[in-house]
Amino acid sequence: MKINGRHYRTIWLDPDDPRVVRIIDQRYLPHALVEEELRTVAEFCRAIEEMHVRGAGLIGATAAFGMYSAALACPEEDSDAFLARAADELQATRPTAGNLGWAVNRLVESLTPVRGVKARQEAALATAQAITDEDAEACRRIGEHGLELIAAISRRKQGQPVNILTHCNAGWLAFVDHGSATAPIYAAHRAGIPVHVWVDETRPWLQGARLTAWELAGEGIPHTLITDNAGGHLMQHGRVDLVLVGTDRTTRRGDVANKIGTYLKALAAHDNSIPFYVALPSSTFDWHISDGLKEIPIEERSADEVKYVKGINRKGKEQEVQLSPPECRAANPGFDVTPARLISGLISERGIMKAEEADILRLYPEHRQ
Amino acid sequence: MKINGRHYRTIWLDPDDPRVVRIIDQRYLPHALVEEELRTVAEFCRAIEEMHVRGAGLIGATAAFGMYSAALACPEEDSDAFLARAADELQATRPTAGNLGWAVNRLVESLTPVRGVKARQEAALATAQAITDEDAEACRRIGEHGLELIAAISRRKQGQPVNILTHCNAGWLAFVDHGSATAPIYAAHRAGIPVHVWVDETRPWLQGARLTAWELAGEGIPHTLITDNAGGHLMQHGRVDLVLVGTDRTTRRGDVANKIGTYLKALAAHDNSIPFYVALPSSTFDWHISDGLKEIPIEERSADEVKYVKGINRKGKEQEVQLSPPECRAANPGFDVTPARLISGLISERGIMKAEEADILRLYPEHRQ
Repeated sequence: MKINGRHYRTIWLDPDDPRVVRIIDQRYLPHALVEEELRTVAEFCRAIEEMHVRGAGLIGATAAFGMYSAALACPEEDSDAFLARAADELQATRPTAGNLGWAVNRLVESLTPVRGVKARQEAALATAQAITDEDAEACRRIGEHGLELIAAISRRKQGQPVNILTHCNAGWLAFVDHGSATAPIYAAHRAGIPVHVWVDETRPWLQGARLTAWELAGEGIPHTLITDNAGGHLMQHGRVDLVLVGTDRTTRRGDVANKIGTYLKALAAHDNSIPFYVALPSSTFDWHISDGLKEIPIEERSADEVKYVKGINRKGKEQEVQLSPPECRAANPGFDVTPARLISGLISERGIMKAEEADILRLYPEHRQ
Repeated sequence: MKINGRHYRTIWLDPDDPRVVRIIDQRYLPHALVEEELRTVAEFCRAIEEMHVRGAGLIGATAAFGMYSAALACPEEDSDAFLARAADELQATRPTAGNLGWAVNRLVESLTPVRGVKARQEAALATAQAITDEDAEACRRIGEHGLELIAAISRRKQGQPVNILTHCNAGWLAFVDHGSATAPIYAAHRAGIPVHVWVDETRPWLQGARLTAWELAGEGIPHTLITDNAGGHLMQHGRVDLVLVGTDRTTRRGDVANKIGTYLKALAAHDNSIPFYVALPSSTFDWHISDGLKEIPIEERSADEVKYVKGINRKGKEQEVQLSPPECRAANPGFDVTPARLISGLISERGIMKAEEADILRLYPEHRQ
């Protein structure tokens, strides 16, 4: 998608050195556009863990290229053990993210039958690039399917702007391109359908205020930033037509783990009969689990993310300020689980389905048990 | 309640000059304890509007003393018009706050039959002091009634800490003393019942992170700060036994307008069968209205409260930082309405009642129509 009119993806090979992977270091957005070079598994792990990159699809793509960097560094002797160690290190960075395990496993599976380090390097690069391209294409098709939902609401509203609330950033910055929750919004905008987005700021990391607002501005989509507390009130007063969010892991019954606070918005949408849709590339499905509340581990992040916040001071410099009493204890769960019963539907690249095992398996018959 | 071991109220007459009212300027908490002197109606209005003071009871008490300051400045000629103008100015500061109108009207009613400026000054002071003392006493009795709820949960948990979630600051800093939602917590703590409080940080103004965490620490109550997004997740996992919040205006059917985001917590408590109680001195009842969603005006505050946040930088200085893209539009509704159907009960100084007109009128028979 566009930054200042120029097309970007969130991750790409350095055109001058194909051993180097480039990302946008999202910690500096929206105040500065900083690119970062990644070369070693340790650098990839840190980029994921410390959220230089974040978001379901992009974590997967970054982990895939992390395995490519492992293949580049891999010795001829004991290369299976070397790659397995890299896979473990990458998998340990973010426990809730479904795409992480999916991408790393796909790399391991693609490399295991290949013999010789050189051949493995080529296979790793091909698989990482395939994952990246598939992610972008899946998001594009999510946009096509989701566009129909928005178009139907627009017709019902006789062309008045469709008000869409989103939480966190399930935008193109969370994937390789297009985004999941934002893809239908971008598609609708391109189709000339008037839309307006309520952007949850998404404490503590402020993905909404920092990333979603910024990327929507880059594409010229009208939007209004709100605190995470405000969405219920807006829904009570008919000011939200549709809630569209992403997911970091989706169970076979349709429970979703997404950014902390998503469950509260699902409850409010349900209470006000507002459609609540979750957009996801198929890679976020975890086909081994059914009950999201019992089976999805929830990452507990640092208390400092709650107690301190970074922004830009009046001189334009990044500054961290402390919000609470210094000795205050804080807890910081990173995700919550929205049970399928609160979800109107899932939108994947294969189409729109109910958040029910039977309807999910209609589109994914290969996962019938 | 206690600040560094010394007893404070939130508003008091200057002991050296009874024409001057002193408050804690809460904008500087928790980083600095700043007292402010208020002398003129304009100063009282600014203190309420710009949130030097905030919270249901304290807004009422401050407005009452604001009318006292008007009486002190009142000319002998046209004094009714002068006082009416002051009343209008004070009432216009915060449109959602129920106590504001209640306190100002009570002052106007107490002054109207009195003749002579000197006599009116004495009457104004007496009424303002009565409102203040009654507020403190009402909160103390809310604590006694609410203590029974906490004690019952404690017995059921066999003495394990009772986990109470609260939103915003309905603590002593929001009243004259004790607080509404915190009064039962302080009472339980004094009675030796182990409690632990989940403190919603409460964006955008961070009343939880700044005020509730600070005042709980002053009284030695174990607590953990969380983002507003986290409460639903904690409730899903059995880590919340009780939700206790305040209210800025309460209808005769038991709908409550409280800090934005309260409705989301009520939905989550309801979804997880967790008791959700609202604590209030009787002065927050607005007996003229029934339907909170339709009839309570919701204050829209400045977008800058969402886009900028203040904290302490590493040098210990207060600093404001910008969180979102500078040109980003933001909306900032200050309150939402939690419908009575989501409320387990109301706790006032008269006792505990269901959030239903019939049960409310059992304790308030004088408001039967």
